[in-house]
Amino acid sequence: MRKFMDADFLLETDTARQLFHAHGEKMPIIDYHCHIDPDMIASNYKFQTITEVWLGGDHYKWRAMRSCGVPEYYITGGASPAEKFQKWAETLPKLIGNPLYHWTHLELQRYFDIYEPLSGKNAAAVYEACNQILNREDMRVRGIIDKSRVKLICTTDDPVDDLHAHEAIAGDPTCAAKVLPAFRPDKAVNADSPAFPAYMEQLEKASGISIISMDKLRQALVNRIDYFGQHGCRVSDHALEYCIYQEATEAELDRILAAARQGEKLTEKELEAYRTAVLMTVARAYKERDWVFQIHFGCIRNNSAKRFAQQGPDTGFDAMDDMHSARKLAAFLSALEGEDALPKTILYPLNPVDNDMIGTVMGCFQTDSGCPGKIQMGSAWWFNDHKPGMERQMQSLMTLGAFGTFVGMLTDSRSFLSYTRHEYFRRILCNLIGNLVESGQYPADMEALGQMVEDISYNNTNNYFGFGL
Amino acid sequence: MRKFMDADFLLETDTARQLFHAHGEKMPIIDYHCHIDPDMIASNYKFQTITEVWLGGDHYKWRAMRSCGVPEYYITGGASPAEKFQKWAETLPKLIGNPLYHWTHLELQRYFDIYEPLSGKNAAAVYEACNQILNREDMRVRGIIDKSRVKLICTTDDPVDDLHAHEAIAGDPTCAAKVLPAFRPDKAVNADSPAFPAYMEQLEKASGISIISMDKLRQALVNRIDYFGQHGCRVSDHALEYCIYQEATEAELDRILAAARQGEKLTEKELEAYRTAVLMTVARAYKERDWVFQIHFGCIRNNSAKRFAQQGPDTGFDAMDDMHSARKLAAFLSALEGEDALPKTILYPLNPVDNDMIGTVMGCFQTDSGCPGKIQMGSAWWFNDHKPGMERQMQSLMTLGAFGTFVGMLTDSRSFLSYTRHEYFRRILCNLIGNLVESGQYPADMEALGQMVEDISYNNTNNYFGFGL
Amino acid sequence: MRKFMDADFLLETDTARQLFHAHGEKMPIIDYHCHIDPDMIASNYKFQTITEVWLGGDHYKWRAMRSCGVPEYYITGGASPAEKFQKWAETLPKLIGNPLYHWTHLELQRYFDIYEPLSGKNAAAVYEACNQILNREDMRVRGIIDKSRVKLICTTDDPVDDLHAHEAIAGDPTCAAKVLPAFRPDKAVNADSPAFPAYMEQLEKASGISIISMDKLRQALVNRIDYFGQHGCRVSDHALEYCIYQEATEAELDRILAAARQGEKLTEKELEAYRTAVLMTVARAYKERDWVFQIHFGCIRNNSAKRFAQQGPDTGFDAMDDMHSARKLAAFLSALEGEDALPKTILYPLNPVDNDMIGTVMGCFQTDSGCPGKIQMGSAWWFNDHKPGMERQMQSLMTLGAFGTFVGMLTDSRSFLSYTRHEYFRRILCNLIGNLVESGQYPADMEALGQMVEDISYNNTNNYFGFGL
Repeated sequence: MRKFMDADFLLETDTARQLFHAHGEKMPIIDYHCHIDPDMIASNYKFQTITEVWLGGDHYKWRAMRSCGVPEYYITGGASPAEKFQKWAETLPKLIGNPLYHWTHLELQRYFDIYEPLSGKNAAAVYEACNQILNREDMRVRGIIDKSRVKLICTTDDPVDDLHAHEAIAGDPTCAAKVLPAFRPDKAVNADSPAFPAYMEQLEKASGISIISMDKLRQALVNRIDYFGQHGCRVSDHALEYCIYQEATEAELDRILAAARQGEKLTEKELEAYRTAVLMTVARAYKERDWVFQIHFGCIRNNSAKRFAQQGPDTGFDAMDDMHSARKLAAFLSALEGEDALPKTILYPLNPVDNDMIGTVMGCFQTDSGCPGKIQMGSAWWFNDHKPGMERQMQSLMTLGAFGTFVGMLTDSRSFLSYTRHEYFRRILCNLIGNLVESGQYPADMEALGQMVEDISYNNTNNYFGFGL
Repeated sequence: MRKFMDADFLLETDTARQLFHAHGEKMPIIDYHCHIDPDMIASNYKFQTITEVWLGGDHYKWRAMRSCGVPEYYITGGASPAEKFQKWAETLPKLIGNPLYHWTHLELQRYFDIYEPLSGKNAAAVYEACNQILNREDMRVRGIIDKSRVKLICTTDDPVDDLHAHEAIAGDPTCAAKVLPAFRPDKAVNADSPAFPAYMEQLEKASGISIISMDKLRQALVNRIDYFGQHGCRVSDHALEYCIYQEATEAELDRILAAARQGEKLTEKELEAYRTAVLMTVARAYKERDWVFQIHFGCIRNNSAKRFAQQGPDTGFDAMDDMHSARKLAAFLSALEGEDALPKTILYPLNPVDNDMIGTVMGCFQTDSGCPGKIQMGSAWWFNDHKPGMERQMQSLMTLGAFGTFVGMLTDSRSFLSYTRHEYFRRILCNLIGNLVESGQYPADMEALGQMVEDISYNNTNNYFGFGL
Repeated sequence: MRKFMDADFLLETDTARQLFHAHGEKMPIIDYHCHIDPDMIASNYKFQTITEVWLGGDHYKWRAMRSCGVPEYYITGGASPAEKFQKWAETLPKLIGNPLYHWTHLELQRYFDIYEPLSGKNAAAVYEACNQILNREDMRVRGIIDKSRVKLICTTDDPVDDLHAHEAIAGDPTCAAKVLPAFRPDKAVNADSPAFPAYMEQLEKASGISIISMDKLRQALVNRIDYFGQHGCRVSDHALEYCIYQEATEAELDRILAAARQGEKLTEKELEAYRTAVLMTVARAYKERDWVFQIHFGCIRNNSAKRFAQQGPDTGFDAMDDMHSARKLAAFLSALEGEDALPKTILYPLNPVDNDMIGTVMGCFQTDSGCPGKIQMGSAWWFNDHKPGMERQMQSLMTLGAFGTFVGMLTDSRSFLSYTRHEYFRRILCNLIGNLVESGQYPADMEALGQMVEDISYNNTNNYFGFGL
């Protein structure tokens, strides 16, 4: 029997252990996709309690507690931090096989030097121990980032954001890590949202362009893309509900935009036409600037109308969708390619049944780019961010693509303690490679394999995004 | 090499063996979902031959025989019991990797003390040996139930059923196991069936309510729910073809119901509206009574029109469907939750590609119930009731939910020898947990793990359904 | 650690090794489905370079090179054979976990006696060594076939083909292998293709029948089926985009056909009705002649409009589709069965998420055929033709069907060196069976198991297709 989560956690073979300890483990981190608040880096925020950092905004943990019947009072309600932590600790043992079990203990080990399994029994002691450590100056936000050997972070930012936090960080020589914005124009894409008319006004203000037509909207978006570019942005992020491709004339698009700005209800076809036009617009701009286009799809959000009314979005009420995607995704990529406007693109399906479909669609658009892995299958994220999910994604990519070109892991996280997910990924990566080698399916050329692990852990990312580290 | 199906069958590690033999194996059985005939329990039926018990109604075996080219004469036709058994025995060796191979031998071992592999060669001898044992008084139906340590059985019953068999069993102190009805109103839901008009008349007669409107139908259904409740019912069962949610006004529903009672063809939208209304009705009643709402979906039935005409339903001609489900399922659950009418619910997808989708949809509706695992992902059933299928379902549940709250296995069976499927499940459960522990992914706290195995095998079920055992 | 791709490659247990070396390895090959050019067999073609045989038409390898950023010049462009080989060799190490890695080294080992891993470093030497061997007389096309112990090959041929190459081969006693045509009438099915009107004229010429109605089209197709039958054909091949079933009257079909012959755009429903009618027609003819009906579905082709314009079809720009299939597939098979016109049928889903659905749909149509495994789940092909893909397909078939009746592997290849894919399949087959036996899930009856391996490798195929070898 292997020890619980020791130094060789998830490393089943000698080859895996060698690859991880000599290569995967030693590489720094580029976290090119997360949802942390740049203001907290700018201000070098100090957490008061482990409850704040763990349970303040992590809806993964909230869902798990709800699934165990914990009253909402102890989750997002008025209970004290100590009470909330206690409930989380009591929930944990039921999460056998869940990534939260591993994440929790990786974070306890790496940041708090705590190696015993957390449960209701030792919750109070662990709570105190963690809080004491969080109280140290070197455990402020920047200390955590440095301790985690994070060289670069991309936050996720709205086009209308003034990026003041990024300016502050860039102008502060005491912040070691590079912190760049990522361009996420979802609010400009979702013309069916009640918030859309107001958002267009914000975008007018931010860009200084009166959005009286689709062409003006294009100018406004490009204006903000350039503003982000001036702040070092190299990457966008798009959360699509489902894949779309619908052509329309410019006159139709003008009409649709005008209707949406009036808050009128669009038909599904109008909405798709509008979204297609906006996505084509930004994609062209990304291509010109050599940015990376990130597309996430397959999520239905805010499924509980009751809880959405009470708690708003991103509170743990989202799910995987199961719509058709292949044809529209392929048509969209083909249209971009047809006008030489297909940027480097990362496709992230949320429902893992789409992995293989993505693996084959992306293979149709890799041509003549000069860029290894120009179109990428995104790392297993959110509901797939666990051992079986990552193995499934990597196996799909291996069998259908060129695994050596993979840009690897992101945290997608809202927490500053989540950098251990890169370690988690690298262990699984090294183990998977180790299994292929030890079973005679790939030569035991440790030098080449070590290079491959280092590339997928760090170098491919740096080169692909053009971060210049 | 491990011995063929010995005491440690499917238990690959010491931890798995310890968990199964000290915990999983010793727990009694609650079979909360099956399709056995309560009259056979009431009359304490005696089987004449192993052919009757194995091949009399088990369309899983019929399919396997047909797949091997066995003529229908030897399956459901006029061949003698001995001939049919011979053909089944000849089929069996071709079923490597099929659960029927394991089920058959588990049943031979546990009920007939036969440990040799069945094939065409030893069929005649096995046939005789089994028949002799079935001839014993202690191998009547109740003896089999007691020998299997089954404490409680839920049969599946139609709302118009008078439950006379359940009354007889309840009044018979010599029947050790508790036998309760389950409420399965599919015939009231399927307004597109040619049998619907006649069924409404039966429902009128059973409830004493003239169903002249949707509201009267609601009353009639609640009347029968109460009748079932008086007979100890705690659970319903619904086989949906696919997930639905369609709103309609009461006037529209009245009109649709009237049309359906006349045998008129409904539009798809009308049918969905009607079904939604009926399901909302019964769900509200379940919630009020704290019953469990079981929803199975993803099955297309009676695919061979030719065979359906000859043999009727449930004869081995059903298949997995592959429709979209996520959005309508989420909308349906949200509507119920919105009026505080969402009961404890078990969602059973038939197509395993839906496992992860279900695992994430259910997580959106667990809030503030006080009930651990209020919304459950149902155990792998029917076409998934095998080692890979159960592992897939459990892995999906582990990664997306709180596995410790799982209510575990059901037989879904039409045979009284199928209780060994609980043993099959528990072996796979213990093995899966054992693998996580032995690979260092979960602490080797054998006391807590033993409790978890006992809970998932029995206690969770008892508590969740409120059986009060 | 196991040695890289040695004699026991992929054989993890003693049972697997014994089954492969004593049974799987020794059986000859029937390659009932491939895309090689019969003219090359007739002329006993001699390859000039390993580049020609490996990279001349293999779009699997092209995709992999493109995924690594190799310029098209080195793939399908004007680079020299040596340069192209160099680029392929440089690509290969990045393909860890990809079947191309295994196929390449199996072919180097079996045909060229080269056992070192190929990479950019040794590319020049390997290139020379391979070319020298290809220069030998015994490495002409027929020599490769004989060396591979291929007893029978079915090429894929268009109904209008005059089969002159097959006639030449049949009349040549020096060709040891039997080479039969397979009937692939896709061009007659795809009435939405711009090439359809011209194709109908070709079909008129080939059949001598003026296609002025659907009934005349039926006669023309049956005419060509008979012509193929005279040349020994036993099998058809159909690539459907997605499963269809749409009824129509004969008058409607006549009108649709006339419109399509004029190049008019059909509605989706018209196209489905036309396709259904053509497929029903040929299926009836196959049934009468006891041919095998092969249906591939789930592919979207030519996704890159730009590359399709430049390079045409079958150049590496196809992908898996994700449409609904179950209901229409079941309805189509039921309609054929209803008129006793359902032939032996092999269903090949391209998207592996359809495996289990297929496994259950096919089980509905196995009845009373007298033919073991009358409806087959096709072997993992194209994007699934690798270890995880084959294991997934075989596990699905095992759990849902009667594995012992499986007709096994095909190459689906455009290359004469691909016969090692049969070896690859047999290793995986033996390993899978070995694992079941060694883990106590199936009895260790080595005689019966050896027979099963020989059957799935060769005998089942010979019997099912009626090749009479």
